[in-house]
Amino acid sequence: MQTYKLLIAYDGTDYAGWQRQPAKRTIQGAIEEALARIASKQISVIAAGRTDAGVHALGQVTHFRANLRLGDEELFRALNGNLPPDIRIISLKKAKPDFHARKHAVSKVYQYRIFNARPISPFLLRYVHHWPSSLDVAAMKKASVCFRRVGDFTSFSSGRYPNPVRHVMRSQLVKKDDEILYTIKADGFLRYMVRTIVGTLLEVGKGKMPSEKIENIFAQKKRTQETPTAPAKGLCLIKVNYHL
Amino acid sequence: MQTYKLLIAYDGTDYAGWQRQPAKRTIQGAIEEALARIASKQISVIAAGRTDAGVHALGQVTHFRANLRLGDEELFRALNGNLPPDIRIISLKKAKPDFHARKHAVSKVYQYRIFNARPISPFLLRYVHHWPSSLDVAAMKKASVCFRRVGDFTSFSSGRYPNPVRHVMRSQLVKKDDEILYTIKADGFLRYMVRTIVGTLLEVGKGKMPSEKIENIFAQKKRTQETPTAPAKGLCLIKVNYHL
Repeated sequence: MQTYKLLIAYDGTDYAGWQRQPAKRTIQGAIEEALARIASKQISVIAAGRTDAGVHALGQVTHFRANLRLGDEELFRALNGNLPPDIRIISLKKAKPDFHARKHAVSKVYQYRIFNARPISPFLLRYVHHWPSSLDVAAMKKASVCFRRVGDFTSFSSGRYPNPVRHVMRSQLVKKDDEILYTIKADGFLRYMVRTIVGTLLEVGKGKMPSEKIENIFAQKKRTQETPTAPAKGLCLIKVNYHL
Repeated sequence: MQTYKLLIAYDGTDYAGWQRQPAKRTIQGAIEEALARIASKQISVIAAGRTDAGVHALGQVTHFRANLRLGDEELFRALNGNLPPDIRIISLKKAKPDFHARKHAVSKVYQYRIFNARPISPFLLRYVHHWPSSLDVAAMKKASVCFRRVGDFTSFSSGRYPNPVRHVMRSQLVKKDDEILYTIKADGFLRYMVRTIVGTLLEVGKGKMPSEKIENIFAQKKRTQETPTAPAKGLCLIKVNYHL
């Protein structure tokens, strides 16, 4: 039995997220179907981050275990040949037998793109959240720093977790031409965490919330109406880090 | 009666080209429908370049004539609000009464993108022609220069034209990271002209045609099997120039 590690990119627009669901088009479903056609049997594919519907990935990491007659290069070609064009295997290699894409990930990096100018290029519209009105970027920058912490992120997520503490190592907002790019790196993410943080930063940018309020929201330890969830289309899983 | 000049961008992937056709989704059809909803009457929209099915635009110029009660800003918003998201009005302003987007254009610039590496980002796949095998870029560069001329481009088009002479002022190929970008500027283009030139450059890049042969093909003054048409998805209308 071999363990394969795959680096995967996808345009999540037309998918109901990573996780396989009956009668829905999902990334996991598409990859497992392609693999089943190649291997003539069902093989489970595990991802580092179970991205939500409409969320993209440029650096998703997955693994699966199988006994295949194909060489790595042949398998790489066969997979890409059997996948829809909006899901691409970027690289494929054999990993240590016990490698686990999710359990062994030490951190993940997500990026959220806000297009902050009026007419948007149609080449970008699938990959950015379009917010044409003015935003106080300086206030958003200041607020973004508040999320860099080891803390309980329940207020910035959906649902309840046995352990809602996450270590956010990087939380950085920059303006680049017409785009506002928010980058966050953490040891793990609660559900909707990045999109809720971005939704909160947008409230700050619109002048609807002072950044001082973020500490109060953290302290409440429950989701409030004041922190909307930003749209999925702006979010992308950029990178998953592992110990060597 | 006012004449409006519009700068338009679109993702041509899901359209049967610029020109209105019965029972097909076209860019012209979509814009005229949006305008009809706003003006409550049928208004013709004329484009500088009648792009083919699947071809994109970042700088298409169009005009229409109408008597509207809306201010320019309101009309701009109403149009974008009534258009599908993959067609965007970038700017709208009143032009001289006799302005004609096609007849008054003095030159147009098209760009063709070839993605020349193995795994392609799914964010690009709608906008580039993916050619993963190796290409002789130096030979393609050399060949690209041959197309800068005042000449009869019948061999690099489809159909017959009363006047097949075009003035190509710029014909430039550059490699930038994993992409090969071909830019062409001319006073006008015959049908499939850019895609046939790119198809020819690809034949040169694959080593199937010496660039010396291009002169012979020009001299034949008819289309040959040796000059395939490159796929539409890589092509984009970048800019239309007018006299001031």
